[in-house]
Amino acid sequence: MSKVSKFGDVEIPSRLIERAVDQMASLPGVGRRTALRLVLNMLRRSEDDVRRFAESLVAMREGVRACQVCGNLSEEPICSICLAPGREEHVVAVVEDLRDLLAIEGTGHYHGRYHVLGGVISPMDGVGPGDLRIDALVERVASGDIKEVIFALPTTMEGDTTAFYLNKRFSNAGVKVTSIARGVAVGDEIQYADDLTLIRSFQHRTPYEA
Amino acid sequence: MSKVSKFGDVEIPSRLIERAVDQMASLPGVGRRTALRLVLNMLRRSEDDVRRFAESLVAMREGVRACQVCGNLSEEPICSICLAPGREEHVVAVVEDLRDLLAIEGTGHYHGRYHVLGGVISPMDGVGPGDLRIDALVERVASGDIKEVIFALPTTMEGDTTAFYLNKRFSNAGVKVTSIARGVAVGDEIQYADDLTLIRSFQHRTPYEA
Repeated sequence: MSKVSKFGDVEIPSRLIERAVDQMASLPGVGRRTALRLVLNMLRRSEDDVRRFAESLVAMREGVRACQVCGNLSEEPICSICLAPGREEHVVAVVEDLRDLLAIEGTGHYHGRYHVLGGVISPMDGVGPGDLRIDALVERVASGDIKEVIFALPTTMEGDTTAFYLNKRFSNAGVKVTSIARGVAVGDEIQYADDLTLIRSFQHRTPYEA
Repeated sequence: MSKVSKFGDVEIPSRLIERAVDQMASLPGVGRRTALRLVLNMLRRSEDDVRRFAESLVAMREGVRACQVCGNLSEEPICSICLAPGREEHVVAVVEDLRDLLAIEGTGHYHGRYHVLGGVISPMDGVGPGDLRIDALVERVASGDIKEVIFALPTTMEGDTTAFYLNKRFSNAGVKVTSIARGVAVGDEIQYADDLTLIRSFQHRTPYEA
């Protein structure tokens, strides 16, 4: 008698549909009801369209890798931002993931490099320093090529924990460690900030205080 | 300076990602920001997992067809409901799509057959009678095997229009035409009704009045 999972109690008439629904429902934020809606949409498309959809995901997964230097996603071993000659190579912004990098690039006001961690330290979710691209960042800093590391991390407990941990790791490297200005409202995600707030948060970055 | 489409202004670092985002954003209810989130989730999976995801959609699209009799989705030419020997073969419930069929099956109280139209008449969306499995239903009725047609269509303008149109087509066939009781609140979708309301709406079905 539940309102929510009605079709969950019913046998879907085809194992192939059931399997496609399972896969769709494995996407973040997609429940089984939404998954069924997406699958029915797929069934209304031509076979060629569905193949094109499927193939685009496989080709992307096979062709895209993390940049060996900064972890940005790229089709080449080293990404276009790391190779760009005009950018300040001694300044590195540390971000959680690609979406934050894209938001910062969107301002057109940041001209340094990046380091994409691929997440933040989150003991609750079982994400420790070893699961992130932290050693690679420490190596970049230890090489002496980097003069300033800018934390552009989320203003959450996990983001703060990550910044705190990274700062400890840099303590003997003689690198300047800053943090973007908290012009970005605490609790808001970087990728949703408006350009002006993001630009100011880079201009007014402050020495990192643990 | 827009808050909504920030990454829309930025070049995504890979054509392969761009293409995958385009495909994901082609799903109903999925905007480009959500599409990017789904695509980044895909990139965190193993190549095998992504292949399995993609393959499940292609296999489904290739292996699932409409039942030749009722339009229900099936891996066989005729679906399991049409072949089930225990069901009343002279009673046919007309539904918009598979999700409504699954909701009705979920009550366990309907023992007739179905006819899945694949939509409802909607001039605003360019959906006319010729786009739906209406001729097949008229043929089923004309064959004389069906004693009662139950409209289990949405209580919307489009659903009412479809019922009105179908009733006209049946006018000379001598078939009993009923409509599920409007125990389902007007404007609500059948698939979201609770079981009890759905059961009553079948028990209290009334002669169709144009």
